[in-house]
Amino acid sequence: MNKNIYILGGEQTDFQRNWAKEGKSFVAMLREVVDDSLAKVDIDYAELNTLNKANDVAAFIGNFAGELYNKQGHFSAFFTEINEAFYGMPCGRYEAACASGSIALEAAINKILSNEIGLALVVGVESMKTVSPSVGGDFLGTAAYYDKEAKGLDFPFPKLFGKLADVALARYKIDETRFMDALAEISTINYANAKRNPKAQTRNWFMNKEHASKRGGEFNMDVGGRICITDCSQVTDGSASVFLASEEYAESYAKKRGISLADIPVIKSWANRIAPLTFDKKVAESKGQPYILPWTRQAVLDAYKKANLSVDDIDLFETHDCFTSSEYVAISAFGITEPGKEHEAIEEGIIDFKGIKPINPSGGLIGVGHPVGASGVRMMLDIYKQVKGVAGDYQVENTKNALMLNLGGSATTNMVFIVGRS
Amino acid sequence: MNKNIYILGGEQTDFQRNWAKEGKSFVAMLREVVDDSLAKVDIDYAELNTLNKANDVAAFIGNFAGELYNKQGHFSAFFTEINEAFYGMPCGRYEAACASGSIALEAAINKILSNEIGLALVVGVESMKTVSPSVGGDFLGTAAYYDKEAKGLDFPFPKLFGKLADVALARYKIDETRFMDALAEISTINYANAKRNPKAQTRNWFMNKEHASKRGGEFNMDVGGRICITDCSQVTDGSASVFLASEEYAESYAKKRGISLADIPVIKSWANRIAPLTFDKKVAESKGQPYILPWTRQAVLDAYKKANLSVDDIDLFETHDCFTSSEYVAISAFGITEPGKEHEAIEEGIIDFKGIKPINPSGGLIGVGHPVGASGVRMMLDIYKQVKGVAGDYQVENTKNALMLNLGGSATTNMVFIVGRS
Repeated sequence: MNKNIYILGGEQTDFQRNWAKEGKSFVAMLREVVDDSLAKVDIDYAELNTLNKANDVAAFIGNFAGELYNKQGHFSAFFTEINEAFYGMPCGRYEAACASGSIALEAAINKILSNEIGLALVVGVESMKTVSPSVGGDFLGTAAYYDKEAKGLDFPFPKLFGKLADVALARYKIDETRFMDALAEISTINYANAKRNPKAQTRNWFMNKEHASKRGGEFNMDVGGRICITDCSQVTDGSASVFLASEEYAESYAKKRGISLADIPVIKSWANRIAPLTFDKKVAESKGQPYILPWTRQAVLDAYKKANLSVDDIDLFETHDCFTSSEYVAISAFGITEPGKEHEAIEEGIIDFKGIKPINPSGGLIGVGHPVGASGVRMMLDIYKQVKGVAGDYQVENTKNALMLNLGGSATTNMVFIVGRS
Repeated sequence: MNKNIYILGGEQTDFQRNWAKEGKSFVAMLREVVDDSLAKVDIDYAELNTLNKANDVAAFIGNFAGELYNKQGHFSAFFTEINEAFYGMPCGRYEAACASGSIALEAAINKILSNEIGLALVVGVESMKTVSPSVGGDFLGTAAYYDKEAKGLDFPFPKLFGKLADVALARYKIDETRFMDALAEISTINYANAKRNPKAQTRNWFMNKEHASKRGGEFNMDVGGRICITDCSQVTDGSASVFLASEEYAESYAKKRGISLADIPVIKSWANRIAPLTFDKKVAESKGQPYILPWTRQAVLDAYKKANLSVDDIDLFETHDCFTSSEYVAISAFGITEPGKEHEAIEEGIIDFKGIKPINPSGGLIGVGHPVGASGVRMMLDIYKQVKGVAGDYQVENTKNALMLNLGGSATTNMVFIVGRS
């Protein structure tokens, strides 16, 4: 039904960088990622300017809580601080907590499909190291229902996803040792994958299965019930961007550069489903149902249906492993196993880098880092790279189709995209 | 080229209310405006639920700085707190400072045009009376480049729009007395219009031309150079919403209710243009040009062109009079006068309620109030009402086409919509 959306490419910043320590703000970050992305897709500011004059390009920015981390709103206006080629361009800022990047992607896709523009620049950006970890953790609480779920708590989000682990254990009656081992393995795989990714935050960090398995104590502090430090993605500064294009623009782009249109990956489908805001309401709604997070599952099903694909057609997944428990339940949401049997896939090596359904070859949020508003765009960039075959040391061979799942809050906003060849 | 977007109706809260004093949060505000809007458009939660099951409806929320005013992000998730009919619905939050409502409207329009949904609920919401005026004024500074234009200043925005008055005076060499009188007249008209609007914040406030003209001193404090209290819109709590529909949905909606499709107003065109972020760069860019804010003018021209209309076809305007100076320059941006001659239109009564080109029959931001993220949606609701003929005591007779201009920051984001009959 819908026309294809082409992905021309993009770039991410090195998620190991601490921009506050460098004395650089999010504006410098935005500038670097846009400049690098333009170079990657072989478009210069002169061409951007020409497109802008024809009102055929727009820019979209995903950001979660710059008001808190950077005392700044109106992020869309900062494109004009980078280069005059943005003067006059339609711009907007898009937010859905940790799925802010995906909400920006969705807005860009719809603006292309409605024939408003041929080219869209989508950037996700979050500069979080401006504050201490505990203050930052409190700010993250605004992705949940702050007054009810976060106010006065240290690190509210690990606690929410610790509860998810509790619910999975209770509902599926999984052996606790097996379950906790599966979570440790998720963490170990993500860290191991990140070592192949030259832009990953943790690429030089220490990690092994033994460390991930020994929870509690000074080396692996308990931060949310069953959730310890090794189960968490970390506070990260970072930005990622992609250029999306209409078929018409992609055709002319490909022709001018002597490349084949068929060689440009496309977004085959996307889905957006919101679940009840508070974690307790989520669990109450899904009581007695096979999936703890039915709207996560539904978003995946929507995307499969729209793309006319099934789990069998997906060669790899990038998922929102803000915590090991969220990756755990995603395994069944994708349809890799039945709900409650996720640990079997983990034990059998199915989701390993060399497995038949690799999850997070990039390293995921745990390994690459989680600059909140940027993660959705970073995931899109990574599945694009895999389908295009340019993921370097973390390339999964023969990737025809790849799926990403980006969550906002405690799996409140659920966004899924499938990328493949046209 | 594009298909029509139909406006089924909507509602706004009473902008005189102080929700903090009532002990109610923005969630209560959201609930009330959505409930009231559903009643207005004759859609109940059962119907919303049916549409949601068919994945044919989405909800969009415009909000500026809830992170600061309400210590809360992820506003889109709060639809699920109102009613279970929202469970599973695609939702997102949209921000462009004071044009947040318009960015939400644009996202909804594009999602309808890309055939994703038939019905869109667009809500703008801002709960600002949670903090003192000076703290709130500081928060508003995040709509500008905070570090460069607002940090450490009392009430940065009146100062920026005071500069706009300075630039207009200097560039157009207008007689200062005439110019300041024109600004006072703008304020007087907006307050007078607001007295006809039963939802306006200032409907019972004292105002006359003499008061607006006597600037300075304890009764009309100078807050930004030439800009005094009577030149400002005021901090306001409020929410507004509209339902937008595809032609297909609108046809079935009209048929079921025995109304004529032709009787439902449509959005004929829209435009989004971003100007350089800082006010100084804006003025530097437009030096020697006829318009001080060329991107505001361009957005108006885009909307005229797309709708195949000119200023002659527009029967009334709702404009973003955050300050009298912003309404002043809008007069030429609309094409009512040449730039620099705006005061003549004001002196001749052209923009009066009974004039030939009424501006802000609702009372505008100065009269109705300016709950930042809600204002764009409130304007859309008002021009819908005028075209539909349901504006009550502030109805401008025989309104065929109406235009709204919503600005973000110091006229950084410029969004224009034209509403009329199909």
